[in-house]
Amino acid sequence: MASENGIVRIAVDAMGGDNAPSEVVRGAVQFASTGQGYVLLVGEPETLQSELAQYDVSSLPIRVIPSEGVIREGEQPALALRQKPKASVLVSTGMVKRGMADACVTMGSTGAAMAAAAVILGLAKGVERPALGGPVVGVAPQTCILDLGTNVDCRPRQLLSFGAIGDVFARSFWGNDNPRVALLSVGAEAGKGNRQVRETTEMFEQSGLNFIGNVEADDIPKGAAEVVVCDGFVGNIVMKLTEGLGQQLNARLRESLSGKIPESELDALLDEFYSTSNVVETRGGGPLFGVNGVSVVGHGSARADAVERAIGMAKSAVETEFIPQMNRQLEELDSRLSE
Amino acid sequence: MASENGIVRIAVDAMGGDNAPSEVVRGAVQFASTGQGYVLLVGEPETLQSELAQYDVSSLPIRVIPSEGVIREGEQPALALRQKPKASVLVSTGMVKRGMADACVTMGSTGAAMAAAAVILGLAKGVERPALGGPVVGVAPQTCILDLGTNVDCRPRQLLSFGAIGDVFARSFWGNDNPRVALLSVGAEAGKGNRQVRETTEMFEQSGLNFIGNVEADDIPKGAAEVVVCDGFVGNIVMKLTEGLGQQLNARLRESLSGKIPESELDALLDEFYSTSNVVETRGGGPLFGVNGVSVVGHGSARADAVERAIGMAKSAVETEFIPQMNRQLEELDSRLSE
Repeated sequence: MASENGIVRIAVDAMGGDNAPSEVVRGAVQFASTGQGYVLLVGEPETLQSELAQYDVSSLPIRVIPSEGVIREGEQPALALRQKPKASVLVSTGMVKRGMADACVTMGSTGAAMAAAAVILGLAKGVERPALGGPVVGVAPQTCILDLGTNVDCRPRQLLSFGAIGDVFARSFWGNDNPRVALLSVGAEAGKGNRQVRETTEMFEQSGLNFIGNVEADDIPKGAAEVVVCDGFVGNIVMKLTEGLGQQLNARLRESLSGKIPESELDALLDEFYSTSNVVETRGGGPLFGVNGVSVVGHGSARADAVERAIGMAKSAVETEFIPQMNRQLEELDSRLSE
Repeated sequence: MASENGIVRIAVDAMGGDNAPSEVVRGAVQFASTGQGYVLLVGEPETLQSELAQYDVSSLPIRVIPSEGVIREGEQPALALRQKPKASVLVSTGMVKRGMADACVTMGSTGAAMAAAAVILGLAKGVERPALGGPVVGVAPQTCILDLGTNVDCRPRQLLSFGAIGDVFARSFWGNDNPRVALLSVGAEAGKGNRQVRETTEMFEQSGLNFIGNVEADDIPKGAAEVVVCDGFVGNIVMKLTEGLGQQLNARLRESLSGKIPESELDALLDEFYSTSNVVETRGGGPLFGVNGVSVVGHGSARADAVERAIGMAKSAVETEFIPQMNRQLEELDSRLSE
């Protein structure tokens, strides 16, 4: 399991998620079949072997790593971590820590993945809790919004960390060499906003980031910035409202267009339309922000294709050196602020 | 100008708004033509007379009330109020205070309308600043969201006032006799949310309102509650994101469907689709919340039809006794909380 000629090794929690293990195993097999990396499938050995028996995996870069138990959505993460020390998400994360894998991926409980990452991999400089972020508004596929829900009450310093992490995300994943970083507020003018935004603005101005000031929520769908910073309460509302509106508008559209264009065209249009409002489901997943290692969390309802994309996301994070870049950026930020 | 046989008298600020005075006058004439109420058109007399000369208004219930100056969008409201004591919005609001009109309507600066209402009409019990609210998510036409931007930092007591006002709004305008009141949060379970939501929950539970707990943002488009309470920072983001997504999705849709269905059908579909995301522009306007009189603020870009609807909204507010009901509700709330 040592690093083999630069081949990326990814530990996949095969037991987490609504459709585990079958869809997770299928997605992992799909990924392994592309020859893009080595898959370490973590879970109950017998279960996984019988799932794998459905495929011809004899020549594929995939093997099973035993674990015991799984932490379900809704379990209290800190408690579950203690009660199930060999749970799949803990074993996967531990492999990254011990250098046996370059990244880990789970479709299981986000809370458990975060707790595991924070405890096992540790937090980056200046970060208090792992954060979640990414392009959740589909019409703006290169706008990373963070935090999306973990950090509901934030101090200015935390928001600044999010800005720095988002900057590295845009550089690493989109190859953007000067990402625009903005604060989400209720007015574009400096000084507009709530107390939190007003207190944070000056710090952003001195951060060395390409800070363009405030954006309003209707600027997000226009792609007005590559990085939109907000606390997790607001970010979660942006993400969920986008999803909810997409679903309702989709239903309206189906009603209005039914019978007016051929059924197959309508389905294709609605699929495309749906995906613009629901990247959470379609893009596969994203890396946890602010932890010292690549841990990708996918959507609980992911099926094989989404699992494959999440594993691909983990591979990209490793290859673009997302974590070392992020750590460097956060350290620079820290020294700039303490000058 | 005394109240004539129960005919509602509405003072319309003819000078405020992007398309004033021409579109405002046209909308006022349209309203007066329906015979639904008496319009008092406030503005520069000569300008208004020459606008009115385009219509046959001799037999219409409409007359001009002189004012001097107008407060523009972007002017600092408190300062402008002092500098222009005879500005149209001040004269219109003053007519309500002096009993010469039953309601006032403006398409001009929201800040100026609020300042005028707060200073001249006064604030309701327990209210610190006027609030804005209404059904801004078009797919949920009977969900009143408040505050929408005036009160960016809120204490629990303010949020509770919003809940009580929203309750009266839903009763008055939608005839709902038991509106469901919810707090916007990031998790449906009690205890989920930021500090603000957690501190507010208990107060809501004791409020006597039909409090159904937390809703998440994707519940809004489903119409999960008649009243969704949040601070103005969050509410403004919900409103603007809805608007911005509607615009972008509309553009996508035009592109995807162009050539596939007849142009006229496409236009109708897109108009309908657009209106579901942009009620701010299409519904005309809404009454200021928490002030002791009916003051309706419409969208700055309103054209005649939207002006007519805004005046109609003012008439409804008067006829359903929105203000006395609201005051009664806020006083009950106050006495229940101090028990």
